[in-house]
Amino acid sequence: MLIEAAHKPHERLGAYLKDEMAAVNALISQRMASKNAPRIPEVTAHLVDAGGKRLRPMLTLAAAKLCGYRGPYHIHLAATVEFIHTATLLHDDVVDESGQRRGRPTANLLWDNKSSVLVGDYLFSRSFQLMVETGNLRVLDILANASATIAEGEVLQLTAAQDLATDEAIYLQVVRGKTAALFSAATEVGGVIAGAGEAQVKALFGYGDALGVSFQIVDDLLDFTGGDAIGKNIGDDFRERKLTLPLIKAIAKADAEERAFWTRTIEKGRQQDGDLDHALALMHQHGALEDTRADAMVWADKAKAALAVLPDDPIRDMLHDIADYVVARIS
Amino acid sequence: MLIEAAHKPHERLGAYLKDEMAAVNALISQRMASKNAPRIPEVTAHLVDAGGKRLRPMLTLAAAKLCGYRGPYHIHLAATVEFIHTATLLHDDVVDESGQRRGRPTANLLWDNKSSVLVGDYLFSRSFQLMVETGNLRVLDILANASATIAEGEVLQLTAAQDLATDEAIYLQVVRGKTAALFSAATEVGGVIAGAGEAQVKALFGYGDALGVSFQIVDDLLDFTGGDAIGKNIGDDFRERKLTLPLIKAIAKADAEERAFWTRTIEKGRQQDGDLDHALALMHQHGALEDTRADAMVWADKAKAALAVLPDDPIRDMLHDIADYVVARIS
Repeated sequence: MLIEAAHKPHERLGAYLKDEMAAVNALISQRMASKNAPRIPEVTAHLVDAGGKRLRPMLTLAAAKLCGYRGPYHIHLAATVEFIHTATLLHDDVVDESGQRRGRPTANLLWDNKSSVLVGDYLFSRSFQLMVETGNLRVLDILANASATIAEGEVLQLTAAQDLATDEAIYLQVVRGKTAALFSAATEVGGVIAGAGEAQVKALFGYGDALGVSFQIVDDLLDFTGGDAIGKNIGDDFRERKLTLPLIKAIAKADAEERAFWTRTIEKGRQQDGDLDHALALMHQHGALEDTRADAMVWADKAKAALAVLPDDPIRDMLHDIADYVVARIS
Repeated sequence: MLIEAAHKPHERLGAYLKDEMAAVNALISQRMASKNAPRIPEVTAHLVDAGGKRLRPMLTLAAAKLCGYRGPYHIHLAATVEFIHTATLLHDDVVDESGQRRGRPTANLLWDNKSSVLVGDYLFSRSFQLMVETGNLRVLDILANASATIAEGEVLQLTAAQDLATDEAIYLQVVRGKTAALFSAATEVGGVIAGAGEAQVKALFGYGDALGVSFQIVDDLLDFTGGDAIGKNIGDDFRERKLTLPLIKAIAKADAEERAFWTRTIEKGRQQDGDLDHALALMHQHGALEDTRADAMVWADKAKAALAVLPDDPIRDMLHDIADYVVARIS
């Protein structure tokens, strides 16, 4: 493992792409402005300044550069991807009635649901303008399809929540929607704008998709095991009755008594003190946390394997290390 | 005036474009389906079945046919425009905390805010896919810009509400966002997909823009005068402290005592029995309702004037009559 705290691979990639990332940040600042409606930059600045790792735009830049792109539009596409991500976060804040995002209060608590919905819509439309500027119809097609997958996945998550019939296949669809679709679009459009061959474009899609799935599984596992505590409490998903992979695996092995427990706590939502501890004990007992961890590793391996057909380049090595790093959080 | 109840001009246009409208409706049904997330058609069917006049998609079809279009993509664009409109309604329902839409309970009361936000996002992404299928970058540019104007206008409306400093210029910006931007995009893209000349494209934009402004002014006037009562109560905007044109005109002429009344009722929102009657009396006294009506007529005249450079055709006559019909509601 190449990982040291001071040299996290996405930080190394960020340093390697320093100039491009500066251009992306400048474009984001410029395009989120609105002289007509000052509420817009107020809300978005709150989110954008809060930072996050800017992993998605970095993936777009990395994919384009890895495929030899020399033009200007990977900057637009990276900003597009970050705007879509930010818009999704704003709408998630309404949706989840959550109180925290990246360790700060969510926009809908500081302002209101109205602002979160409408400013999210504004960012979607700004992202749409940015991608149209590239003049590349295939890129538009990929991002339109990714947007539909994202929205569909979010609705599916809504209807799958609290439903014990949610299985691993449904979980995977939800994860593709909420996370992997934007990761895979981010890497794929980088390759497409660079004019890469089909095999490389497919590999970039596959890398982003597998990285995104792995990333989300890790996130869902950490919700129960802790260890990456920024702004989240252990068991939030259980309290919100979200059927994530560790729960799904435990429920699949439940006997009648355990099933009654899951029905009461997840389906009916009648939770009481000690329920989270009991849920954790059941997950341990059935190896659900260990199996979830193994699944995350399999997806990280898929991500790394997809890189094989891409050019041997420092960027490829960093993408490889990022896949390792995602699962290193649970090693 | 050519208007009779049995031959409303948009109904005549609908009959004239019957086959195309059937194709649009079929495409809408097809694209709002989602096998993965059955909640989506549940929510949208509720809205789409409720009907509405389908005026916006009809405008796109009319513009394309008027300019001699023979291809298939005006159908896609008409469906695009209706999806954007429906998505906006869904997000408005969250935003306004309103309880009725087209005479039925809003989706967010039947389901919840979550579904309204996410299904709205899904329809936006479906509209995006539809327009990408046309392969016409100029159309994409127009619709991307319209989307940004819509979202910006909605946010502006949010911040302008309850603020007595809102003037007619800000009102016009809000109206462009919430109504006219989609009307003008609907007509403009019809011309563009037909390969019309610049003067005709500009005229189609101008017609849609002026029609949309006129349409919204009439709506805002009817909120105070009634007469078009489907699903709305007189004075809703006053109770919600929305600064629409009749109020803005009355406030502009307020003396100190009247100003104190507006400050209490609109800015501070401390309304009591009899306030709406007093507000109406002040609007009458200052000629605010009459002036608002005159403004709506001016915009309808602008819409009709814009049609001059377009081909002499039954469709042009019907577009002309639609502009008359919009203001006939307040004649």
